[in-house]
Amino acid sequence: MSSQLPSDSVGLVKPQTLHIEEPLSLDCGKHLDSYDLVYEAYGQLNANASNAILICHALSGDHHAAGYHSVDDAKPGWWETAIGPGKPFDTNKFCVICPANLGGHKGSTGPGSNNPKTGKQYGPDFPIITVRDWARSQEVLRRKLGIPRWAVVAGGSLGGMQVMQWAIDYPDKIKHALVIAAAPKLSAQNIAFNEIARQAIINDPDFHGGRYYDHSVVPRLGLMLARMLGHITYLSDEAMRAKFGRDLRAGRINYGFDVEFQVESYLRHQGASFVDRFDANTYLLMTKALDYFDPAAEQDGNLAKAFAPASAKFLVISFTSDWRFSPPRSREIVDALVDAKKTVSYAEIESDLGHDDFLMTLPHYVRTLSAYMSRVAAEVNK
Amino acid sequence: MSSQLPSDSVGLVKPQTLHIEEPLSLDCGKHLDSYDLVYEAYGQLNANASNAILICHALSGDHHAAGYHSVDDAKPGWWETAIGPGKPFDTNKFCVICPANLGGHKGSTGPGSNNPKTGKQYGPDFPIITVRDWARSQEVLRRKLGIPRWAVVAGGSLGGMQVMQWAIDYPDKIKHALVIAAAPKLSAQNIAFNEIARQAIINDPDFHGGRYYDHSVVPRLGLMLARMLGHITYLSDEAMRAKFGRDLRAGRINYGFDVEFQVESYLRHQGASFVDRFDANTYLLMTKALDYFDPAAEQDGNLAKAFAPASAKFLVISFTSDWRFSPPRSREIVDALVDAKKTVSYAEIESDLGHDDFLMTLPHYVRTLSAYMSRVAAEVNK
Repeated sequence: MSSQLPSDSVGLVKPQTLHIEEPLSLDCGKHLDSYDLVYEAYGQLNANASNAILICHALSGDHHAAGYHSVDDAKPGWWETAIGPGKPFDTNKFCVICPANLGGHKGSTGPGSNNPKTGKQYGPDFPIITVRDWARSQEVLRRKLGIPRWAVVAGGSLGGMQVMQWAIDYPDKIKHALVIAAAPKLSAQNIAFNEIARQAIINDPDFHGGRYYDHSVVPRLGLMLARMLGHITYLSDEAMRAKFGRDLRAGRINYGFDVEFQVESYLRHQGASFVDRFDANTYLLMTKALDYFDPAAEQDGNLAKAFAPASAKFLVISFTSDWRFSPPRSREIVDALVDAKKTVSYAEIESDLGHDDFLMTLPHYVRTLSAYMSRVAAEVNK
Repeated sequence: MSSQLPSDSVGLVKPQTLHIEEPLSLDCGKHLDSYDLVYEAYGQLNANASNAILICHALSGDHHAAGYHSVDDAKPGWWETAIGPGKPFDTNKFCVICPANLGGHKGSTGPGSNNPKTGKQYGPDFPIITVRDWARSQEVLRRKLGIPRWAVVAGGSLGGMQVMQWAIDYPDKIKHALVIAAAPKLSAQNIAFNEIARQAIINDPDFHGGRYYDHSVVPRLGLMLARMLGHITYLSDEAMRAKFGRDLRAGRINYGFDVEFQVESYLRHQGASFVDRFDANTYLLMTKALDYFDPAAEQDGNLAKAFAPASAKFLVISFTSDWRFSPPRSREIVDALVDAKKTVSYAEIESDLGHDDFLMTLPHYVRTLSAYMSRVAAEVNK
C-alpha cells in the first residue's frame, strides 16, 4: 500500500475475475452458458472462512467498493466510507467481497461482453436480469470461493433489495442481512422515473436499438438525461435548497438558455460525466431489475410470507430525508419481518442529503453500522 | 349554444384577437414592436365594467379556458370545472376573460409567429418572457378592453404567479387576487425538473437550435420526455399508487422494454399526445418564466416587502397532496401577506391527486372558491 493513500483505506486493490463454465438459469427463461464474475476482496478470510461479507452494489455501482486502483486514482471505491481498517465493515476483522452484477459494464458479463453465439457484443440480446438472478450468481460465487456462509450480506438501495433476496432464497448461507435505504418494491412514481430514463435512452437516435457499439457511438443524450433525472431522486428537496438554493452562477439573470442557476450546472456536469463512465444497455437492465423486484408478489402481496424462509438477523436502516426510498418504505420491510417473527433491528437516521446519505458518514449512521458489525465480529471470532 | 353541450357550460366560444401596435418593453431588455393577444371572454360585462375577471393560465394552458370551439369538440377549455353559469367563476354574474400568454403557440405572439424583421418565424429569436412581462401585456389588454379594474385576477400554478405579480405591479387595477397551487418562487428541485426538460428539448437532434419550423420537424423526443417528467410532478406519489399501483398491463411480466406497468402506458400516452399539441420553443419559454419568478429577489429576499404595494384582497389555496407546490410554499405567501398587513384568506384543501387538483372539482375547493366569489359578486353589484 502506498504511503500516499489514506491510512484508513484498504489501499491499492485489484479486481479478480472468476470465469464460470456452468449454465446460469435466469428468471426470464433464458440462461447464460458461461459467464464472468468480476469482484474485489478486501481483508483476509479466516481459517474457517466464517468472516466473509458480501457487498451488493446499487444501480450505478460496481465491484470497486473500496480502495484505489492506482496511487494516482482521484477517487476511491464507491463505499470507501464504510469499508476499510477500523471502519464499519472492518477489513482487519472481515474479508469483504464485492462482485459486479451481471448485466454490468465493467467486467462481469453484460451487454458489452462478447456473445459466444454470435462472436459480437450482446447489446440488446443480453437477457433481462432480476435481483433474484443476481443473488443466484452471487451464490455461485460463494460456492466457488469456498465460503460456507456469509457472515453478512449488505447493500444500499438496489443493493438492499439483493440482500432481502439473499435472505429469502439462501437462508442457510447468510447470517446477517443489512438492508439500507431500500424498499420492498418500487412505487408507481419510482417506476415512472425509471420509465422516463429508459425512454430517453431508447429513443436517442444514437441508441440504434441497443447496437450502438457497432456504430461507434453512445446514446449520450439519453444517458445524460437519465442520470440528471436520477440525481433529482437521490437528493432531497431540502438538500438541493441547502446546496444550491436559487444561486445564480453568473450572479445575475442572463435571459437565455445557458446555465443560470447552480443547480443546472451541477446537473449538467453529473449528466455529462456519467456518459463517459456508464453503459446505456446496463442502465436499462438495472432499472428493469428495480422495477421487477417485488418478493411479496408470489405470496399475493404478503411480504411477511415472502420473508418466512429467512433465518438471517436483519438490520434495516433508512434516512429521514430520503424521498426515493423513504423511511415508511423501510418500515414496510421491518413490519413484515416482525410479522414473520424474524429478528430485526431498525434505525431511522436523521439526515439532510436524501437517498445518497447511505454513502455518507453521518455519525449516527456510522455508529449504528459499527455497533452492529462489532457484535457480528464477536460472533465470528467466538 | 348547442343543446348537445352541457347546460352548465358557457357553450360555444370563439377566440378573439387584439392586435396591439404599441411597443412592449420586456424584462430581458428587448421589446416587441407590435403583438397579438388572443383571448376568450365568457359572460357579459356590466354597465360600469366592474365585473371583469382576468384568468391567468399555467404552463400548458392557453386562452381556451372554458366552453367548446365546436359542437363536436371532445374536450372543453382547461378550467371548465370552475368557469360557467352557476360555477365558481359564474358567467351569469361576471365577464371572465382569459388571454393566451405571449410566447405561447396558439394565437398570442410567440416563437411560431412571424417576425416582422425577418419575415420568418421567430423561433429561438423570440425574446425570453417573464411573469412580469405577462402582467404588463395583460395590463395593456385591460386598458384596450376599457375595463377600469379587474374585480378578480385568478390563476393556478404559473397562473398564480401572474396573479401575485398583478397585485404587486398594478395595485389599483385589481380588487381580488386568487392565488391557487402556487409558490413565491421555484425551489432548486423545481428548477432541476425544468432544466432536465429543457435539456431534453434543446439536445433533441430535431430541435435545430430552435429553428425546427424551417426543417418541417418537431423535437418529438425532447417534448415527450419533458411532458412525461411534468406529469410526475403533477401527480402525487399516492395518486399514482391509487391510479396505477404496480398493475401490469398484460397481467404478467414480459421481461422486455415494451410497456409493462400501467403507469408506463399512461406516461407514454401523455408524452406522445403532447407532442402534437404543444410547441417546444414555447415549452422552453414557459419553464424559464417559472424559474425566474421571484418577486422577493428585488427586496433582498423579503417577500413581505415585495407585497407592500399591493392593495388587493387575497385568497390563497393549496392542496395537501401537491408536491410540486406544496402547502408550505403557499404558507410562505400567506405569511408574507400577513407580515405586510394585507387582507388574506387561506384554504388548505385535503386532496389526493396532487398539483392537478386545482383543475378538479373537490367539494371543499369548489365551496371555498364559490363562497369567496359570491362575496365578490355582492360587492360588484352593490
